[in-house]
Amino acid sequence: MRFVKGLKCVLCGALHSTRVPYTCPRCGESGILDVQYDYAAIKRVLTRRTLAARPDRSQWRYRELLPLRADAALPDVAVGWTPLTPAPALGRHLGLGRLFLKDDGRNASGSLKDRPSAIGAVKAREKRRKIVACASTGNAASSCACLAASMGLRSVIFVPERAPEPKVTQLLIFGATVLRVRGSYEQAFQLCQRACEKWGWYNRNCAINPYLVEGKKTAGLEIAEQLSWEPPDWVAVSVGDGCTIAGVWKAFRELRTLGIVARTPRILGVQAEGAAPVTAAFATGEPPRPMEPRTIADSIAVGVPRNWKKAVMAVREADGAMIDVSDGEILDAMRYTGRLAGVFAEPAAAASVAGLRRAAREGIVGRRATAVALITGNGLKDVQAARAAAGVPFDIPPEGDGLEDILKERKLVDCHEA
Amino acid sequence: MRFVKGLKCVLCGALHSTRVPYTCPRCGESGILDVQYDYAAIKRVLTRRTLAARPDRSQWRYRELLPLRADAALPDVAVGWTPLTPAPALGRHLGLGRLFLKDDGRNASGSLKDRPSAIGAVKAREKRRKIVACASTGNAASSCACLAASMGLRSVIFVPERAPEPKVTQLLIFGATVLRVRGSYEQAFQLCQRACEKWGWYNRNCAINPYLVEGKKTAGLEIAEQLSWEPPDWVAVSVGDGCTIAGVWKAFRELRTLGIVARTPRILGVQAEGAAPVTAAFATGEPPRPMEPRTIADSIAVGVPRNWKKAVMAVREADGAMIDVSDGEILDAMRYTGRLAGVFAEPAAAASVAGLRRAAREGIVGRRATAVALITGNGLKDVQAARAAAGVPFDIPPEGDGLEDILKERKLVDCHEA
Repeated sequence: MRFVKGLKCVLCGALHSTRVPYTCPRCGESGILDVQYDYAAIKRVLTRRTLAARPDRSQWRYRELLPLRADAALPDVAVGWTPLTPAPALGRHLGLGRLFLKDDGRNASGSLKDRPSAIGAVKAREKRRKIVACASTGNAASSCACLAASMGLRSVIFVPERAPEPKVTQLLIFGATVLRVRGSYEQAFQLCQRACEKWGWYNRNCAINPYLVEGKKTAGLEIAEQLSWEPPDWVAVSVGDGCTIAGVWKAFRELRTLGIVARTPRILGVQAEGAAPVTAAFATGEPPRPMEPRTIADSIAVGVPRNWKKAVMAVREADGAMIDVSDGEILDAMRYTGRLAGVFAEPAAAASVAGLRRAAREGIVGRRATAVALITGNGLKDVQAARAAAGVPFDIPPEGDGLEDILKERKLVDCHEA
Repeated sequence: MRFVKGLKCVLCGALHSTRVPYTCPRCGESGILDVQYDYAAIKRVLTRRTLAARPDRSQWRYRELLPLRADAALPDVAVGWTPLTPAPALGRHLGLGRLFLKDDGRNASGSLKDRPSAIGAVKAREKRRKIVACASTGNAASSCACLAASMGLRSVIFVPERAPEPKVTQLLIFGATVLRVRGSYEQAFQLCQRACEKWGWYNRNCAINPYLVEGKKTAGLEIAEQLSWEPPDWVAVSVGDGCTIAGVWKAFRELRTLGIVARTPRILGVQAEGAAPVTAAFATGEPPRPMEPRTIADSIAVGVPRNWKKAVMAVREADGAMIDVSDGEILDAMRYTGRLAGVFAEPAAAASVAGLRRAAREGIVGRRATAVALITGNGLKDVQAARAAAGVPFDIPPEGDGLEDILKERKLVDCHEA
């Protein structure tokens, strides 16, 4: 970790050495640590020119900005450098000047979480651990199992009783030992924490592991580079725990510090109405009160966001805004993102698009603005949720009776001219 | 279409102009056409050096070898240039020298079919059609709807009654008009053919549309380039209709003709035991008899393969082999491909890995061979099938009783040393 200076507590500001395992020894579990780099040194090696000369098209091209040893072994599956897809028709629909979708659903296990999980797997190997563990039913778990498999590590995943079968299936395919806890997510989480301590497994919990979130940063670095270092006016990011939006902001801040970009985008944080403690904290400045999340967007359904402070600070620094969207708006966004851009986003990912729409309507984001929506996960990961958005097919007999009426109603019969 | 010389009938050998719409006017529906190029002219512009200088990382980097106008509008979603992932642990498990997975599950709609569908959408725009249509429940349909959406076209998809809900959902999200035909696949197909003729929609049916299969070719071109123009000893491709394997072989043949590669790989065609008419045709040289396909690998469950002849000719020319694998072997392959390589393959994609394993055991593929398995689709597209492969989680109470016994049995308790 050539360029890492230490770990700074987000609460008390103390700078710790990298020997501190997860959170601030003084502040306890809420003392989230943030990796500090020697930017003056990085500036000498990381420039637009050195980056342009790197053939590596993955998140590892930004290795100086990641907490890795120079000789770190990396996973074989490709992580990051996902497409930044222009979406002009969708942009017009939202009332924006230009719109791009950063499609992180293209990652190995189908979500942005492969970025932090890859860092986790690399760190686990570095620390000579053979096993990584996490408690989750969602994208964190499947990416943890996927990246562990790719690096020859084993994974142990604690899931609550209500974990949906398809998600458990993905874990088992990646060879994880899946422990289904007859209880709540919190109980699964506590069991995982104790097991990690007892058996010395590497703990892949983004919320408390300071290194993992650095992986999320690479999505922001890529957006900047894919736009030829001309950052957009806005980047929209859906918010659950808060560490993804903090990571994305950190990317742009670092690029400005390094002199690689001249300005930074404003950041739009989007929460689901049924799980919006960070929006409340952003408005009031007070720590959020724990709440029971209720939203279709399960990847951002977080009632006790451990990284709320990092998130609020990021949006403030970015001169950004926080906004809530309803489940109805999220379902709408899944539909029009698919129809107008050819991208199938999971609900939490579509929330960022729904947020841009609302922000454009409310005048927060201007009509000429260039915006990027971060698509954090693939819609195929949660087809059940998509069914609510999708509508239903037309039933017709094999002879085709009634077909013409349907086609006429859908304006599909006159089609020789474009 | 600067470099296209015409369309050659696979049956009678006649060369037709590109004004012929789909199949050979003499031979009818079984007269599949193959696009012919002016390789002497292409050789002057397409070299290792010109390719290395192209920044475009998508299938469009091989535009001279595609049946496109120079000014063709291209879709916004990224198509192709999927990762070629080294899989050393999986290679050892199969008994191979080196193994790579060409992960086409990373495409926009999750399968290799995005490659031909993208060509279809581009051709539809070129012909000033506003609507593309196809009959399918599978990857062809979802990729057709996805690429149409990305190019501002509309799509009409005919699906049989038994089409699984998740696949219909993906179609609806991409904005397709989905017509569920109360009948068989064949009835849906016939209705689609008639509707295309009647209403002038662009017909995206790979089996008869000579341009689409050229998109499949790009997977082979990419494998060659990603291996620095040193083709592997073997490329394993699962076979349903037969046009994917024909396309992959065409890629290597063209690269040899152009002098870009010095030699070509041998091609291993893999069918499911319950749907193996092409393997039979390869063995006997006789046209396959129609059969009722029975396999978990629905993307290659083809009882009447229209491109059997192209496939058989390709494998012969490539000095290759055809092999069948059981559904049990396919499910096994899904499991060990996930566990050892971190890649979640749909059953038809895992069949190529299962085929390599069997071919290595039978001595067809040598123990020191370098092989590439083409992963044609993402396992997330058919989680139902994966459940049969995945096994079950361990159930434990929130207090963790019994956890230690499970961990000991799984050898997960002693893990500080790598």
